Amino acid sequence: MRIEIICTGDEVLTGKIVNTNFSYMAQKLEDVGLSVHWGTTVGDDRDSLLQAFLHAGGRADAVIVNGGLGPTVDDLSQEVAAQAAGVGLELHEEWLARMEDFFSRRARNMPPNNRKQAMLPVGAEMLDNPIGTACGFAMDIGRARFFFTPGVPRELRRMLEEQIIPRLLARSGVPTAIHLKRFHSYGLGESHVDQLLTGVEEMVPDGSVKLGFRAHYPQIETKLTVRGTDADDIQRKLAPVQAEVRKRLGNFILAEDDQSLEGVVLAGLLERKGSLAVVETFTGGQIAVRLAPLPGAEHVFRRGIVVRDATQLHGMLGLEDVHLASPLTQEATEAVARAARERCDATHALVVLIELDDGPDRIDFGGTIWIGIATSEEVAFRRSRVLGGREWVRLGAAELALDCLRRLLHGVPVVERIDFEKT
Amino acid sequence: MRIEIICTGDEVLTGKIVNTNFSYMAQKLEDVGLSVHWGTTVGDDRDSLLQAFLHAGGRADAVIVNGGLGPTVDDLSQEVAAQAAGVGLELHEEWLARMEDFFSRRARNMPPNNRKQAMLPVGAEMLDNPIGTACGFAMDIGRARFFFTPGVPRELRRMLEEQIIPRLLARSGVPTAIHLKRFHSYGLGESHVDQLLTGVEEMVPDGSVKLGFRAHYPQIETKLTVRGTDADDIQRKLAPVQAEVRKRLGNFILAEDDQSLEGVVLAGLLERKGSLAVVETFTGGQIAVRLAPLPGAEHVFRRGIVVRDATQLHGMLGLEDVHLASPLTQEATEAVARAARERCDATHALVVLIELDDGPDRIDFGGTIWIGIATSEEVAFRRSRVLGGREWVRLGAAELALDCLRRLLHGVPVVERIDFEKT
Repeated sequence: MRIEIICTGDEVLTGKIVNTNFSYMAQKLEDVGLSVHWGTTVGDDRDSLLQAFLHAGGRADAVIVNGGLGPTVDDLSQEVAAQAAGVGLELHEEWLARMEDFFSRRARNMPPNNRKQAMLPVGAEMLDNPIGTACGFAMDIGRARFFFTPGVPRELRRMLEEQIIPRLLARSGVPTAIHLKRFHSYGLGESHVDQLLTGVEEMVPDGSVKLGFRAHYPQIETKLTVRGTDADDIQRKLAPVQAEVRKRLGNFILAEDDQSLEGVVLAGLLERKGSLAVVETFTGGQIAVRLAPLPGAEHVFRRGIVVRDATQLHGMLGLEDVHLASPLTQEATEAVARAARERCDATHALVVLIELDDGPDRIDFGGTIWIGIATSEEVAFRRSRVLGGREWVRLGAAELALDCLRRLLHGVPVVERIDFEKT
Repeated sequence: MRIEIICTGDEVLTGKIVNTNFSYMAQKLEDVGLSVHWGTTVGDDRDSLLQAFLHAGGRADAVIVNGGLGPTVDDLSQEVAAQAAGVGLELHEEWLARMEDFFSRRARNMPPNNRKQAMLPVGAEMLDNPIGTACGFAMDIGRARFFFTPGVPRELRRMLEEQIIPRLLARSGVPTAIHLKRFHSYGLGESHVDQLLTGVEEMVPDGSVKLGFRAHYPQIETKLTVRGTDADDIQRKLAPVQAEVRKRLGNFILAEDDQSLEGVVLAGLLERKGSLAVVETFTGGQIAVRLAPLPGAEHVFRRGIVVRDATQLHGMLGLEDVHLASPLTQEATEAVARAARERCDATHALVVLIELDDGPDRIDFGGTIWIGIATSEEVAFRRSRVLGGREWVRLGAAELALDCLRRLLHGVPVVERIDFEKT
């Protein structure tokens, strides 16, 4: 099935906003085994919209149009859709009633120009929008089925998932039971993960398991899209493949599905009624900010200390005798971790000290990262050297530190070589 | 002049990466008074590329194509461009020599498949890429001038600015002297800024000053695009308008052009050889992370303290007698600011304590923000209440706090009502 996406609106066309709706839709379709063949972006302009609809209607099977369903004069999707299909507009009484209810439940009167949002092309099928006033609709233009969606991201997302994807899957003949399994890893490059997973798709010989990746430094997401006749069939196919992925990527998998690294770390601490102190330097608060604001962290995140100069820690942590200027040592890092844990009265302390290279930012600019994690029993230590510019070092250090804590909490080795470090 | 953009590549089409190149190019063109009329996204697919080139060549005056200039087999731009124009490919000796030099200066041999990057359509004009191996080029297809650019953002950005925009301006007949003046503000909504600036464009009656906005919560960017015959003419036109904008937006302007709020704060502290301590709660390190990693901050950023529970500050700051549990008070906030300044031996201390509403995240979820700034002479205080969900409160609190410090450093009132707060 050939699918196209048309994104409308001056704000997108002029680059005022980055078009994340497009990538969101394309990924969601990929996740269920469908593909986008062509994308078009046009402004709030009658001629361009009409041309875009007619072009797409002439060559695609299905077209998703995003935006232009609002109440103002520059929202033109219904009007131009009707023109492209050679039909008129008519008032959709049901949607008008829904909108009036929407406003009255918020103790407001519906402004008269919202009525326009209930004017749909004759014969269009309404697509429900339970969280907004922009009514979606589906209709034929040319040889394609068109799906019109609101520009507001959360309204679009819900409509895509609940209304449009099921209709597309029904039309495409793809079995409607589809499942996406995701693994998040850190420390292995995309080509390395790809190579480690060679052949896992073939474990299910009928081709119903598809492997894909998405890299967003420092993490890699590994995705298994599984098709089947029903949920049981999917689980039967997925079980051996996901077991194999877990085995091959091993300790590098830091989270699965909707979990995040910081969420996993927080859960690990909550589980053992633990608490955490964080000491960081050049990461500048990057580690604290991933943990501290999370719901539940108020019981766990005890204290974060940020300094740019590690010698500031002398007085704060009672470490007058420890050498904290460059060059750092394992001994000094461990002493800071122990002191932070005690001073902050926490079960765990995570310390990340960074010795940054001198000179201007450049591609081979690097840093040496000293990580210590203190518990009541031990102090774990990890040292690493990362190259790639100031921002790259900062992101890598925060990720490595959180991952070391995750490893310690999960009882797997804290030290394991990663692809991003120079030894 | 009708300009189109064609973005190519499976990674963009499938949504694996968000297409920030498109919005970047569109904004850069807007900034010099040019507009994009149509955007197309296609994958690494010969047929789609050919169709896209022919469509655009039939209706546009100029087309920018992004991506597909790499060394691998799925990089097809040169080949398909040649096909669309009905010409062959030929080796561009100059570019081949440049690439060989590029590799030899990095002490590497050029891999044989890079040779493909020097194969350009016959008659194409080379567009220099001083920082990569993907050679840009310009040529006619149909009635349009096509500009082919690399997908790597920093290579694209440089080529767009140095090679393509001057050529487009020359073709468009727009005077080539164009200047973009930007003001960053915080605290006024976009429609409020728009209303305050009514009529400033008309101060230059020939229409050569254009006003625009870009909102990215919590900041608003106000842009003046000025056209003139030369730099002097531009300065003459801009001077009264920018003075008027500064007057009307007043203390709400926090930075201009490439400055950032955190950069302005850091500069203000550096200027008076100052140093800073930061204490934050629910912002979770968000304030520290904007300041601490900046170049130069190693001399200024003394200490950041992050706690989720303000009572943790009792022992740390020697404030055993101060009531730090909810409900907070001005007195308590000021006591924390004074203590943080003394304990951290800093000239300035910025304290941001937040009382978060109870219950699940929702659109009317809010927080009360208590800000104190201590110096050797005084403690400035600001209280605010912000609604809009957890993340909204967090972003707003970090911005408000940094802006209060900026106001104090610049000697303008720390307390001035903002549009985003409930009183």
